[in-house]
Amino acid sequence: MPNISTKATQMPPSPIRKLVPYAEKAKKAGMKIYHLNIGQPDIESPQVMLDAVKNFPLRVIEYSHSAGIESYRKKLLTYYKKYNINLEMGDLIITTGGSEAILIGVMSCLNPGDEIIIPEPFYANYNGFSTYAGIKVLPVPSSIESGFALPPIEEFEKVITPKTKAIMVCNPSNPTGHLYTREELEALRTLVLKHDLWLFSDEVYREFCYDDKEYVSVMHLEGLDQNVVLLDSISKRYSACGARIGALISKNKEVMASALKFAQARLSPPTFGQVAAEAAIDTPNEYFDEVKKEYVARRDFIVEALNKMDGVFCPKPSGAFYCIARLPIDNADTFCQWLLESYSHSGETVMLAPATGFYSTPGAGINEVRIAYVLKIDDLRKAMVCLDEALKIYPGRTETIVHEMDMAK
Amino acid sequence: MPNISTKATQMPPSPIRKLVPYAEKAKKAGMKIYHLNIGQPDIESPQVMLDAVKNFPLRVIEYSHSAGIESYRKKLLTYYKKYNINLEMGDLIITTGGSEAILIGVMSCLNPGDEIIIPEPFYANYNGFSTYAGIKVLPVPSSIESGFALPPIEEFEKVITPKTKAIMVCNPSNPTGHLYTREELEALRTLVLKHDLWLFSDEVYREFCYDDKEYVSVMHLEGLDQNVVLLDSISKRYSACGARIGALISKNKEVMASALKFAQARLSPPTFGQVAAEAAIDTPNEYFDEVKKEYVARRDFIVEALNKMDGVFCPKPSGAFYCIARLPIDNADTFCQWLLESYSHSGETVMLAPATGFYSTPGAGINEVRIAYVLKIDDLRKAMVCLDEALKIYPGRTETIVHEMDMAK
Repeated sequence: MPNISTKATQMPPSPIRKLVPYAEKAKKAGMKIYHLNIGQPDIESPQVMLDAVKNFPLRVIEYSHSAGIESYRKKLLTYYKKYNINLEMGDLIITTGGSEAILIGVMSCLNPGDEIIIPEPFYANYNGFSTYAGIKVLPVPSSIESGFALPPIEEFEKVITPKTKAIMVCNPSNPTGHLYTREELEALRTLVLKHDLWLFSDEVYREFCYDDKEYVSVMHLEGLDQNVVLLDSISKRYSACGARIGALISKNKEVMASALKFAQARLSPPTFGQVAAEAAIDTPNEYFDEVKKEYVARRDFIVEALNKMDGVFCPKPSGAFYCIARLPIDNADTFCQWLLESYSHSGETVMLAPATGFYSTPGAGINEVRIAYVLKIDDLRKAMVCLDEALKIYPGRTETIVHEMDMAK
Repeated sequence: MPNISTKATQMPPSPIRKLVPYAEKAKKAGMKIYHLNIGQPDIESPQVMLDAVKNFPLRVIEYSHSAGIESYRKKLLTYYKKYNINLEMGDLIITTGGSEAILIGVMSCLNPGDEIIIPEPFYANYNGFSTYAGIKVLPVPSSIESGFALPPIEEFEKVITPKTKAIMVCNPSNPTGHLYTREELEALRTLVLKHDLWLFSDEVYREFCYDDKEYVSVMHLEGLDQNVVLLDSISKRYSACGARIGALISKNKEVMASALKFAQARLSPPTFGQVAAEAAIDTPNEYFDEVKKEYVARRDFIVEALNKMDGVFCPKPSGAFYCIARLPIDNADTFCQWLLESYSHSGETVMLAPATGFYSTPGAGINEVRIAYVLKIDDLRKAMVCLDEALKIYPGRTETIVHEMDMAK
């Protein structure tokens, strides 16, 4: 029997999905699970998307151009223009989800053994794609106390070596919800130019910036045209994660020529998804107004609920639909598995993503979880009751057991 | 400006798609092009697939399970059972097209620097995915004279080194149309066991075996359970290339555990495509009877038409919908580009895939083209007229110019 590859062994299981078998088992046993572990919103996809697929006019489900359906790409330029991102046709290719944009971007720009700096906690699959490409992630820790703001630039400087070729950010951030300020991005800009690095920016949550705070894209930064690779996806924008449509964007022509070759190897992005995505560009603004209002309400609800729980701390995020909470527990992996395997609150439980998977530094985030506030407030309320009650009886609880013993004295 | 990666530089452009810009230019100038360059059939997708998408019942275009929609996977087992391929749920994951099955398969089993033997000519994108994974392709030439039968096992033995970890075949073959006999596959089986290699088999054309010849899967071979990785796709089966749905299949549990981790990194295969694919399993047998009849007629037509042309040789394939023809030309790349840039037969031309891209040995296949007989016979007829006339006047023609001069004497 031949051996599987080293990468296969190193490949991290998705921290968001690794608990799925436990969830499946619990569901089969009749348990109701509130899924706060995954950024799969319950928001309806825009009607124009669903209609476009219903009215799919062709008799043959054809390949598209490797870079994506031409009319879709053309129309997509108008979408970006609204965000003051001015692109030409050659500056973008359609990818199979944001995931493929990451993979192709990383493959195009970095060699095996190269290093990429990512402020942590970060979207867990950056680890996966780094393993894919054989590159090394250098984490620079951000702190829950500061609401996961950009770490000081000195911390980046400290880890840079001659093998460091790139920085990756997610703005607004999955998993922290942090929205980078113009000052933070300008600081990154200076650093990137100083060391001539690639700057990858995953901006799939740009529709979800709250409290009238400004969304600044890396595409807005002066003089970075040759360094910036923008990674995008329609999954969150239109609540259409299953369409698997994203985009890779750069003004660097070498990057785009390379990306097209990688794209040709996989032939084309999904046709139905592209048809839906093209139609989605006509989504009325009211849709986003409604959605944003809903997410703000959910965020406000959940952050308040979390901070009310004994021993829990959760900073208030300004974007995306995630937050990271610190819990009074020994180990978030154990806790999240326990929620699915051994816990029930009137036949219900909650599924969370252990934050450890979003850190690259071993041991970091051990008592933190990522919560995706992708359910209706009614469901969030029930989920928070589940969590609150669970924390009271979880055997690995740290703080409160002492507290309760004190109370009993 | 930072440098792009070495892999980006090495990544071969798709020989099937690299001429696309010339075709786009010709089309914009009003030229009618017969596309025989790409395996995009004009056959209609089964109605059940189109209906399933039209009736998509959900309001949210959700992620699926990383391994694919459970009901689809379950139903897919019944599809394979019909081919005497007996699988359990854990033996397969749904991929984004056959392309992703290749990528995940290769990533799971081979390390950078490892070698994979592939009889050439072979599906060009195996080169692309080998570059992706940093592995080296060792070609073993098959010959047009033998109809691209499996090369003698001694030729495989000659190239095997300690770094050789796998063999890859495509059966029935894209680009040659060769259908491997049981004897050929048994010979491969012995070789694989002797050297404890992986055996990757791309069997996406199993529906297209002609002349009552037997389809033998590597899954039918005794004692190879731990070595075999089957790569599959619905693209050709249902004329649904744009659905981007494939499968990776193995009885080797380590491979499947690894594949799932790679699959989790990209979250899920396309939802609409899976919905269509699940419905497609109910495609009536008559659909395939019709389609097969059509392809046999096309094959018979095109092989005869080609062999009638002065200086052209094309062996008759037994499967898939491709053939490779040797033409009396200096260089197939130049010729295929010339067809798009400088040639017109009453405003029409034909697009072919230069066979050089299907060979890994430099210079091999220089006067060969791959032809996909994916158009109606009426269109094929017009395309063959284009080709015949083109060959007469192509400046780089080799044989006939001499012949015509002889005639003129």
